[in-house]
Amino acid sequence: MNNNYCIIMAGGIGSRFWPLSKDNYPKQFLDILGTGKSFIRSTYERFSPVIPDENFLVVTNKAYKHLVLEHLPMLRDDQVLCEPARRNTAPCIAYAAYHIQSRCKDANIVVTPADHLVTNETEFQRIIRLGFDFLALNPQALMTIGIKPSRPETGYGYIQCGSDALRHCEQSEAIHDNVVKVEMFKEKPDYETAVKFVSEGNYLWNSGIFLWTLDGIMQAFKQYLPEMVEVFEKGIYNFGTPEEQDFINDHFVDCPNISIDYGVMEKSPNTFTIPADFGWSDIGTWGSLFTHAKKDDGGNALRGKVVSVDNTNTIINIEEGTEAVVEGLDDYLVAYRDHSLLVCRLHDEQQIKVWIEGLK
Amino acid sequence: MNNNYCIIMAGGIGSRFWPLSKDNYPKQFLDILGTGKSFIRSTYERFSPVIPDENFLVVTNKAYKHLVLEHLPMLRDDQVLCEPARRNTAPCIAYAAYHIQSRCKDANIVVTPADHLVTNETEFQRIIRLGFDFLALNPQALMTIGIKPSRPETGYGYIQCGSDALRHCEQSEAIHDNVVKVEMFKEKPDYETAVKFVSEGNYLWNSGIFLWTLDGIMQAFKQYLPEMVEVFEKGIYNFGTPEEQDFINDHFVDCPNISIDYGVMEKSPNTFTIPADFGWSDIGTWGSLFTHAKKDDGGNALRGKVVSVDNTNTIINIEEGTEAVVEGLDDYLVAYRDHSLLVCRLHDEQQIKVWIEGLK
Repeated sequence: MNNNYCIIMAGGIGSRFWPLSKDNYPKQFLDILGTGKSFIRSTYERFSPVIPDENFLVVTNKAYKHLVLEHLPMLRDDQVLCEPARRNTAPCIAYAAYHIQSRCKDANIVVTPADHLVTNETEFQRIIRLGFDFLALNPQALMTIGIKPSRPETGYGYIQCGSDALRHCEQSEAIHDNVVKVEMFKEKPDYETAVKFVSEGNYLWNSGIFLWTLDGIMQAFKQYLPEMVEVFEKGIYNFGTPEEQDFINDHFVDCPNISIDYGVMEKSPNTFTIPADFGWSDIGTWGSLFTHAKKDDGGNALRGKVVSVDNTNTIINIEEGTEAVVEGLDDYLVAYRDHSLLVCRLHDEQQIKVWIEGLK
Repeated sequence: MNNNYCIIMAGGIGSRFWPLSKDNYPKQFLDILGTGKSFIRSTYERFSPVIPDENFLVVTNKAYKHLVLEHLPMLRDDQVLCEPARRNTAPCIAYAAYHIQSRCKDANIVVTPADHLVTNETEFQRIIRLGFDFLALNPQALMTIGIKPSRPETGYGYIQCGSDALRHCEQSEAIHDNVVKVEMFKEKPDYETAVKFVSEGNYLWNSGIFLWTLDGIMQAFKQYLPEMVEVFEKGIYNFGTPEEQDFINDHFVDCPNISIDYGVMEKSPNTFTIPADFGWSDIGTWGSLFTHAKKDDGGNALRGKVVSVDNTNTIINIEEGTEAVVEGLDDYLVAYRDHSLLVCRLHDEQQIKVWIEGLK
């Protein structure tokens, strides 16, 4: 037993992976990569060596509570916090922080999305432990894991560090030398800017994995999001009691719709990052899935009972219990799940959201 | 009530339309064209003004008997004859002919496949009546409906007529002038030969729809297929009795595997054809289905709840209860039914049979 808590944010609906992900079965519950485990299950297992089972909290929509408990049966019912509405990451994290506060005033917290990929879990755990060690010395620090960029990705936000900081940290094993002060957070760049970031060498991808102490994040909320704090303070005596859910149901919607990055991280002078390299991807697009999937000789990523004839660079992903013959496609995406079929050019995938509107 | 009988041959398995047609649900039971009726149902309705309900016989595999009765609920159980094995068209027709013989010695018979398309049913019925009228005058004639060819199709057999015969028959309404002596039956030609046939003007497509009297076809069977007749004659007293099915189950397999064209029509000097033009197709390929289907502005034939984006000349056919988004295909075929998906180039459809072997 320790005071390390993990908040898994699992409220996403993930329409980008339609038809695999849908409102009634979003991406975090899928095993898109064929690892044998859903994203949320992998997320739990990745943190499990660092966080005791009873210190996990999953924040999700109440529609997904049963799915969370199905994928993570080691959690108690009250470890799944249900948002009555979507209000972006700041209120999501605040909800969980107020809940933790009712149980443990001196908690350390790591916050993570439920639907990312990490290929080197040992290195991942080393980084998380390093983050907690840093917090023990710097309890007011607001930390985010920074990923060393391998390409000029335009789908991620970037973290700008001091020019020499990254070079320095590779030469030392001391905790302080492995943690770098954030100079500035940068929104998703266009391609040219991304190329510039990567070539300059002092930029990292913003993974959306955060570490802080309970006290540190609470102080920051009070300073930068007072109108949100006002909402939660009204129910301060309800958290951790049977009245918590009723209070949330009644008042959560009053929170501003704002991300933790925009609402807190970009405003605080107290932000740090740990440069890391543990095989990370947010698998936010079919393209990134394709990058990480195993391919056949034609460069095709196949899932399910598929006869693939004369295809190249094509994703074919069909659910169990179905079968497919697919022939003559180059750079396409073929996906079938839950009575819905998608066939499209891989590079047009950003249009999926628009197209599926036509089915409604 | 009259003595006109109709034999519907409905034993095909139709793997060319996979995944729409499968062993457990072959083409004759499908509504591939979206007319609201299955092929077998349309076949029945097309003959219904000419043939009394009680004079229809459907020959099929026993596995499909329940499907036949489902699609044609006006038939009695004993109007569905069950082949225990597939032995091509000659034994199929002989089985039905022996059955008819037990009920009506002076029957006229029209034989039809269960899975063809006819668009002008009124003209079709005129032609069938004309055939029966000709039989009344020429009871030994073996007739087949010949279709005036509209293109050099290589997928059909051809009927060669006398050079002047066809021209003559268009100028007269007399029965005899509308029926033409067959000079020779021609197997499916290669493309060059087909072009020659069409340009010469005295060739018709062989529709596989036959008319004859019971006596006429029985005489022909005795003359040209004595080894088959020997099989059926053993059970001559069983036809039309409760023992018929047992006899067939025990002896039908002993019949030679031979088509009516090869076994009888090509050998008899007594063959006639009625040149006809009633919008006929055997819908034997996805390509022919495409020809007859309604198209959208992009030339796509769509069936089901489909959002089609930037496709051209593409068939998209998905079963009820499913939905699809399909984008960026030209000259493709996308079909989903019964847990099976096919995506392939339309002009490669002849390979479907080979590909689906890979799923087994």
